[in-house]
Amino acid sequence: MVVSAASSLVCRNCGAQVPLRPQHACFECFGPLEIGYDTAALARVTRADIEAGPANIWRYAPLLPVGQDPDSRVTLNPGLTPLVRADALAEAVGLRAPLWVKDDSANPTHSFKDRVVSTALTAARGFGFTRFACASTGNLANSVAAHAARAGVPSMVFIPHDLESGKVLTTAVYGGDVVAIEGSYDDVNRLCSELTETDEFEKTAFVNVNIRPFYAEGSKTLGYEVAEQLGWRIPAQVVIPMASGELLTKVDKAFAELVEIGLVPATSWRVFGAQSRGCNPIVTALHSGSDDIVPVKPTGIAKSLNIGDPAAGRYALESVRRSGGWMDDADDDEIREGIRLLAATSGIFAETAGGVTVAVLRKLVASGRLDPDAETVVFNTGDGLKTLDAVDGLVGPTYRIRPSLRAAREAGLVG
Amino acid sequence: MVVSAASSLVCRNCGAQVPLRPQHACFECFGPLEIGYDTAALARVTRADIEAGPANIWRYAPLLPVGQDPDSRVTLNPGLTPLVRADALAEAVGLRAPLWVKDDSANPTHSFKDRVVSTALTAARGFGFTRFACASTGNLANSVAAHAARAGVPSMVFIPHDLESGKVLTTAVYGGDVVAIEGSYDDVNRLCSELTETDEFEKTAFVNVNIRPFYAEGSKTLGYEVAEQLGWRIPAQVVIPMASGELLTKVDKAFAELVEIGLVPATSWRVFGAQSRGCNPIVTALHSGSDDIVPVKPTGIAKSLNIGDPAAGRYALESVRRSGGWMDDADDDEIREGIRLLAATSGIFAETAGGVTVAVLRKLVASGRLDPDAETVVFNTGDGLKTLDAVDGLVGPTYRIRPSLRAAREAGLVG
Repeated sequence: MVVSAASSLVCRNCGAQVPLRPQHACFECFGPLEIGYDTAALARVTRADIEAGPANIWRYAPLLPVGQDPDSRVTLNPGLTPLVRADALAEAVGLRAPLWVKDDSANPTHSFKDRVVSTALTAARGFGFTRFACASTGNLANSVAAHAARAGVPSMVFIPHDLESGKVLTTAVYGGDVVAIEGSYDDVNRLCSELTETDEFEKTAFVNVNIRPFYAEGSKTLGYEVAEQLGWRIPAQVVIPMASGELLTKVDKAFAELVEIGLVPATSWRVFGAQSRGCNPIVTALHSGSDDIVPVKPTGIAKSLNIGDPAAGRYALESVRRSGGWMDDADDDEIREGIRLLAATSGIFAETAGGVTVAVLRKLVASGRLDPDAETVVFNTGDGLKTLDAVDGLVGPTYRIRPSLRAAREAGLVG
Repeated sequence: MVVSAASSLVCRNCGAQVPLRPQHACFECFGPLEIGYDTAALARVTRADIEAGPANIWRYAPLLPVGQDPDSRVTLNPGLTPLVRADALAEAVGLRAPLWVKDDSANPTHSFKDRVVSTALTAARGFGFTRFACASTGNLANSVAAHAARAGVPSMVFIPHDLESGKVLTTAVYGGDVVAIEGSYDDVNRLCSELTETDEFEKTAFVNVNIRPFYAEGSKTLGYEVAEQLGWRIPAQVVIPMASGELLTKVDKAFAELVEIGLVPATSWRVFGAQSRGCNPIVTALHSGSDDIVPVKPTGIAKSLNIGDPAAGRYALESVRRSGGWMDDADDDEIREGIRLLAATSGIFAETAGGVTVAVLRKLVASGRLDPDAETVVFNTGDGLKTLDAVDGLVGPTYRIRPSLRAAREAGLVG
């Protein structure tokens, strides 16, 4: 059995280290903790090790903090989602180099959250937690409830009361508890932090609160997969939607690790971030040249990105600035048009977050921030079936006729 | 380049043979045509050939009539969907042997239709058709529109006007024409047959009409995958939902082929069919000991199975009778309960057709028709996100509270 190369929790703020355990904030400075690795152990991992693994995220188990033993996994086996060449989309937005869509709507509950939930809950069971929980804008709740059902473990998910009805039904159907909170995601998150301090929730793992470092680390697999699917190389540019900002930082971290341990050539890459106009605190900070993320009260249709006080915003800014990338935002009409454009050119139906990313891709090309001659990967993190309201009224039947040739003729379908 | 082992179209009724071409009915007797193979060529295919192929249906290209040349494929690359061990579901329905769910909601447009559309449209492009079309209960329309968008080919799909809104939006978003017909699926299908005879539709491939043999053949991949995923062996029992009945017959055909060409041990298997109470003409024929399928006017929530005049019903009866299986049906309440049970025990959220199959599985165990001590595979052919209406009102938030510890306490979440 391969053991994990993870060695400690490291404070992203002050660098303090503590042992691997269910802890998310540094005792020294209250900064966020992330997983640290024994670099020598990571460096022993080969492409062949990975390629011999299963066709899901667990092929990267040697690069993750948990899941080395297959029997330890609490998982729906997400990952190895399609990397789709999108020539027609490239042409539509003015890119001349190859464009790819990394389509995470193909995961078991149809969002990238299955990745982070699989690593978080595998850690949670290992630490002895007996109930699974989360604060969620919807996709995460879906995934936690589904994972819990598969594993036969009770779950309790906390969501804002005004979520898309599809996301609520899809979560509730798995039979766990669903708690609708009369407030924003940030209110939900705050309540969950408070609940972790109560006796009743001592054995409850909130995937994105008290075991957050193990949760966040699952996002690295998106970066690993893109590199492997391109034939073990890193694309020149990536465009990534931002809610907490964590996904962006972890894809960047994954690329850096692959270079560091020699699994890909040491090329450079630029990281671009996308938010919706209704919740753009990270974009605002970048555009104003500030390090301070000023929290906002989110509005707009891209609910899965509506985190007004983004926990990893500061680190997302760092990744984007260090790599020479940029960020931009898209309003609701642009988001809807982004969904339609992606669907019509690539056959991929994205949720609102995907619409944000495609709309921002287009803006970044138009503004000259993104090099139209450099290979680019955009990330679709969720499925259009989860946010049907966004396209309701925008698209629909083009004809409605009675079932006869005569009716077809009158409608102009035949001459 | 491997050439196809397919050699002709063979009439399922009179055995007459014609060359491979866009034709679905026998000129001699009007019986349905299906693909015939050069058995010697099939017999040269090895497990290693298949295992070396891509992680999708095209790994079985040597056993299919089209797609041997990767550049010829019109496809979203569906297939190799999860085969999920479902111990908790087995216990709930009274099975003592291993139970598996073959989960085709994991396909790109989240139903098994991606398989048949990929083989049909690959054939269609090869035959020189320049527009893609179908008569659909919803899932097929989704898939045809998405495939057409990816391939950059115009599409026109015909659907009953009263489909679930999710299925309509999901189809229309891809930008092709969507024609809503004021009638049943059988009316839609009849109109499409008439349209294929018009000049305007001469170059239009209706995947399930004028190129139906190539379409139906794609369903074989579900059978191949189950056998390969079980380690190259055939399960003792399979439970399959029936609309036209074609899926059931093709899984049975796939198993027979694998035995014939020596890729699996020559074990026996029993085939079970599932319909909804609102559209059960094949079940009715079996239960009354008749060979005649009497068409019905479909009702009920399982719209993807609502084909009142099932084209392959007679052959489904043959498969079930020959193999010693059985069929049963489930009413709308049982279907909803089937959806809920599958989700809560396995983490798989199925559309109504999956609810039908699980409900019928339970009945077949209870009635003693299905052996509770024999390994069983049930087929989930579509995603719960497509038929959310079915669970609306059945499940929902278990609590609704303000965002405070005090509110959580008042609701009984903490002491």
